[in-house]
Amino acid sequence: MTTGTLFDRIIRGELPSYRVYEDEQVLAFLDIGPQSAGHLLLVPKESKETVGELSDDSAAAIGRVLPRICRALSKVTGSPHYNILLNNGRPAGQAIPHVHFHVIPAYGRRSEPGQGLHTDWRPGSLGAGEGERISAGIREALANEAGPGGS
Amino acid sequence: MTTGTLFDRIIRGELPSYRVYEDEQVLAFLDIGPQSAGHLLLVPKESKETVGELSDDSAAAIGRVLPRICRALSKVTGSPHYNILLNNGRPAGQAIPHVHFHVIPAYGRRSEPGQGLHTDWRPGSLGAGEGERISAGIREALANEAGPGGS
Repeated sequence: MTTGTLFDRIIRGELPSYRVYEDEQVLAFLDIGPQSAGHLLLVPKESKETVGELSDDSAAAIGRVLPRICRALSKVTGSPHYNILLNNGRPAGQAIPHVHFHVIPAYGRRSEPGQGLHTDWRPGSLGAGEGERISAGIREALANEAGPGGS
Repeated sequence: MTTGTLFDRIIRGELPSYRVYEDEQVLAFLDIGPQSAGHLLLVPKESKETVGELSDDSAAAIGRVLPRICRALSKVTGSPHYNILLNNGRPAGQAIPHVHFHVIPAYGRRSEPGQGLHTDWRPGSLGAGEGERISAGIREALANEAGPGGS
């Protein structure tokens, strides 16, 4: 088979990868275009493009292994600092249409290439009216959900 | 009590916040310094500074609610695109010493302030020797872990 995303093919072992962790629901392997040494990808075996499409069980399985992965990565890189990033949708920077979390070690100066994820933090200010409106909207949308989904 | 992090005080209701979701292990509320409209924070009630210190159960609880939170947020913002970011450690941009995931909606042009998270993607190239060395190191570190931790 050659169907599915690039990550489906890596999961099935049709394409090589530097694997670091695998269980029934999750695979982790090194990013071949790393932002810094040790940059890895954590992907659900469930083949979904967006987080919103992912089953709760699959998303929980990714969360569950994160502390272990982060401890092991820090031990190997020697840096206790890192960024975890998920880009959802092409306009948000998603390159492969299969949910994936980047875990990117941060070294001395993230502004320099190869040292980590470079982000430009530009906080705005949340007005009271907007805060009420948006939070009420999200609470209502969550209340209208059918509840936790299965796997 | 006024002990603990800013987020502990929000969790206990000692400080106001625009709450959007709460369960036994997790709280989500709007960021008051948003990168874009709808920018929210997802925090474990377990008060830990780093992901590596977090219990597996707490980390799984965060993962489990992510699909629901992201669907609800997209519905309210009208944008299906977003970034999920965790900064671990001050050199990685962590401002509050309590684990927190940012969920940041992405609008038209993320390079403009207020439209989303601006990242500067600068991929390197993973050499075979480095790939083998790092992946073997992480696999070994994981094998030496005591296994999944409790809550």
